[in-house]
Amino acid sequence: LTGARTTLKENEPCKRMVLYYHDVLFNGTDAANATSVIIANHSAISNFEFGMMVVFDDPMTEDSRLLSPAVARAQGFYFYDKKDNYNAWFAYTLVFNSSEYKGTINIMGADPFLEKTRDLSIVGGTGDFFMTRGIVTFQTDELQGDFYFRLKMDIKLYECYKK
Amino acid sequence: LTGARTTLKENEPCKRMVLYYHDVLFNGTDAANATSVIIANHSAISNFEFGMMVVFDDPMTEDSRLLSPAVARAQGFYFYDKKDNYNAWFAYTLVFNSSEYKGTINIMGADPFLEKTRDLSIVGGTGDFFMTRGIVTFQTDELQGDFYFRLKMDIKLYECYKK
Amino acid sequence: LTGARTTLKENEPCKRMVLYYHDVLFNGTDAANATSVIIANHSAISNFEFGMMVVFDDPMTEDSRLLSPAVARAQGFYFYDKKDNYNAWFAYTLVFNSSEYKGTINIMGADPFLEKTRDLSIVGGTGDFFMTRGIVTFQTDELQGDFYFRLKMDIKLYECYKK
Repeated sequence: LTGARTTLKENEPCKRMVLYYHDVLFNGTDAANATSVIIANHSAISNFEFGMMVVFDDPMTEDSRLLSPAVARAQGFYFYDKKDNYNAWFAYTLVFNSSEYKGTINIMGADPFLEKTRDLSIVGGTGDFFMTRGIVTFQTDELQGDFYFRLKMDIKLYECYKK
Repeated sequence: LTGARTTLKENEPCKRMVLYYHDVLFNGTDAANATSVIIANHSAISNFEFGMMVVFDDPMTEDSRLLSPAVARAQGFYFYDKKDNYNAWFAYTLVFNSSEYKGTINIMGADPFLEKTRDLSIVGGTGDFFMTRGIVTFQTDELQGDFYFRLKMDIKLYECYKK
Repeated sequence: LTGARTTLKENEPCKRMVLYYHDVLFNGTDAANATSVIIANHSAISNFEFGMMVVFDDPMTEDSRLLSPAVARAQGFYFYDKKDNYNAWFAYTLVFNSSEYKGTINIMGADPFLEKTRDLSIVGGTGDFFMTRGIVTFQTDELQGDFYFRLKMDIKLYECYKK
């Protein structure tokens, strides 16, 4: 355990939250309900959307229902990045502005979403999450073609500087 | 204050700099003066530029004047990411190559620019800013439609490994 | 050395790997060999590809040969971001799934590739690289016009929490 200031125990985050992320991709006509938009179309290179990039402002809820109150918003982008199968990459911010939390959590990493679970890095935070670092585990909770998908995000902070 | 190696005091950064960021968006004819370019157009979803993405190489100055000597450059991208109002997201690097500093500071986060101030994460650094982490506070200093905006960036480092 | 939990010695990473990154840009017909795709074309602002954005899934090898077994994959994006000369910016993940390592390393930063070497930030890691931070030094190893380039990536971790 070199170069580390202390031991970090993977099974003992200093804070943990499980939230659901809902993405409704704009299809050209559903502006009222859509939460994300394609900004770059996929490449002709193959059939797994390689290169398609999406910008999103997606609600985060405490249970899995799309219409539950949003306790935070996920703002950022993802893109597909594999020739021979589905695979994605994300960079985004969880924005909290409620009576419970005010602040942001910044996240980036690979999302090989054909795998049952996959981990991304929490690279920083602000406000109530000042200077945080950690891991987010993604799990696909629902997938409806090109229209809607829901991710269960298990947010584990391992550096906590605010109570 | 668990999982932390020491206490970090939000009002006691180990280093602090206030710099001004100037963005002059290319309009198709002002190549000599422009510092940034649109790489993806906004979506038809609504009227707040949702999805518009810009790549920039913007000068950073010590005072608020656009033509002051640049003490660093900000290189990266931003995009607009809200349906019902203006909102943005940034990821970029501050590149220093002067007699005072040689190195880079890497930054990402949400920029809800209708708010008076907003915080982004300093996620790493190189050279004179080796392994830094911190917070940047943005404040809009000037906004001229689609043409020019200036941000005051209050750069606060809380991990400093070089003198 | 304030705000730091310990001293980090730039010449004493807790882990170090040198790997080669190979990028073969899709030209419209070489789908079988290409590893990356243009998702946004360069701006008309000047002649140095300002604004061109590429998404990649590039092999990482232990020696410099393109066809050596890939010990990891680099998944992410880069773009060109300078008006008056070549310059780039990267954000990506090194994905390891071998008998030696399972996990990811997340990286972002400026790539002024006309310079002999340049440093980017390792901002986080997962799996065998749980919560890592560090520096990657890029060096151009081969450059064949628009078709192929190879980078030597010297990966230095300064925070290591797994043996």
